[in-house]
Amino acid sequence: MSKNAVVIYSGGMDSYTVLHRALSEGYTVHALSFHYGQRHAKELDVAADVCQTLGVTHKIVDIRAIHQLIGHSALTDDTQAMPRADYAEDNMQATVVPNRNMILLSLAIGHAVNIGANVCFYGAHGGDHAIYPDCRPEFVERMNAVAGIANYEPVEIRAPYLHASKGEILADGLALGLDYANSWTCYLGQSLACGECGSCRERLAAFAEHGLTDPLPYAQGGLDV
Amino acid sequence: MSKNAVVIYSGGMDSYTVLHRALSEGYTVHALSFHYGQRHAKELDVAADVCQTLGVTHKIVDIRAIHQLIGHSALTDDTQAMPRADYAEDNMQATVVPNRNMILLSLAIGHAVNIGANVCFYGAHGGDHAIYPDCRPEFVERMNAVAGIANYEPVEIRAPYLHASKGEILADGLALGLDYANSWTCYLGQSLACGECGSCRERLAAFAEHGLTDPLPYAQGGLDV
Repeated sequence: MSKNAVVIYSGGMDSYTVLHRALSEGYTVHALSFHYGQRHAKELDVAADVCQTLGVTHKIVDIRAIHQLIGHSALTDDTQAMPRADYAEDNMQATVVPNRNMILLSLAIGHAVNIGANVCFYGAHGGDHAIYPDCRPEFVERMNAVAGIANYEPVEIRAPYLHASKGEILADGLALGLDYANSWTCYLGQSLACGECGSCRERLAAFAEHGLTDPLPYAQGGLDV
Repeated sequence: MSKNAVVIYSGGMDSYTVLHRALSEGYTVHALSFHYGQRHAKELDVAADVCQTLGVTHKIVDIRAIHQLIGHSALTDDTQAMPRADYAEDNMQATVVPNRNMILLSLAIGHAVNIGANVCFYGAHGGDHAIYPDCRPEFVERMNAVAGIANYEPVEIRAPYLHASKGEILADGLALGLDYANSWTCYLGQSLACGECGSCRERLAAFAEHGLTDPLPYAQGGLDV
């Protein structure tokens, strides 16, 4: 049985934790980051630095050519306003990239088949359920059903934090000894995190939940949560 | 209910027939072709010509960047020998591109969501079942299960020739009045079809089954079937 695993690693705190979870389970990790035209491409630099430090194989795959297919999200279109509000359904629908996780998982599964890995990890988590249909448990379950038969070798999709809140992921990562200064969350991708987009707010709330201060510097000095 | 449909259209005879099947059912077709590093990129030129003549919206999406993820197929790697033999499992495993149809369908579904189409057509057919796991009925069934819930709007995957042989697809296309000189099948992608690769042999056999001569010129004068 192979101990190779593909990890979809964006550079954000969820997939940063997933990456270390896979390593702690003894997998030889092949990390994949995707440049799909996101405005916060800074997360890709953070991902590259982390993998280099860890000695983890890392590929950044430029799939911006697909932008012509799935445009029209505030995450990829800088002519659209980024919602500066809580990470709740009404505010965040503007950040939906059509079918994003199926696209990224299908590429990760293809890579897994190619290198002889039988597991793909990704960072879907409980907090995203209401907002992104492709982060829900039934999505993961059905993707697993098809990933099991789409190639000669079955591939298993694992989303270890599928039922966890952001705060619970953080708690797990802190227990693993992780330094979250090595993760990037802000959707805007400026030199400092904005502290105001839904993604920053959710991150700050997770630290506040544990009575901790986020080690990342913020342009606005953080959010008063 | 939208009458827009996305059709994955490679330029080959199966998807050429699917394209016309969708048109004949009254859909406004948005055709997608993918340049994924296939050696037979000539089929993309054929696809562009056909869509221009039909006045069908057509995008060619260059996804060669994913080659670094799913390399190692005789279809995409010109250092590998192309099997020159019948289109049977032993010969054709070299032409498997890992997870190809899940990748292409996930992109097509994303595009469907983006343009407000609720159907994606693709040309899986009965003859491919034994060879390509992602052309089998259970694959289509499970992809449909996930395509129904991966986005706010469900998308249906339709593979009208899933249970048809190549000969049956040809018969349907001939009944629609199609001219198969406007399709490209050969895996080698030279100026004339080789007549010897598994894909050419299968095509020629379909014409022979109907007592017809393929209108496409062949480098070798065709195969004696």
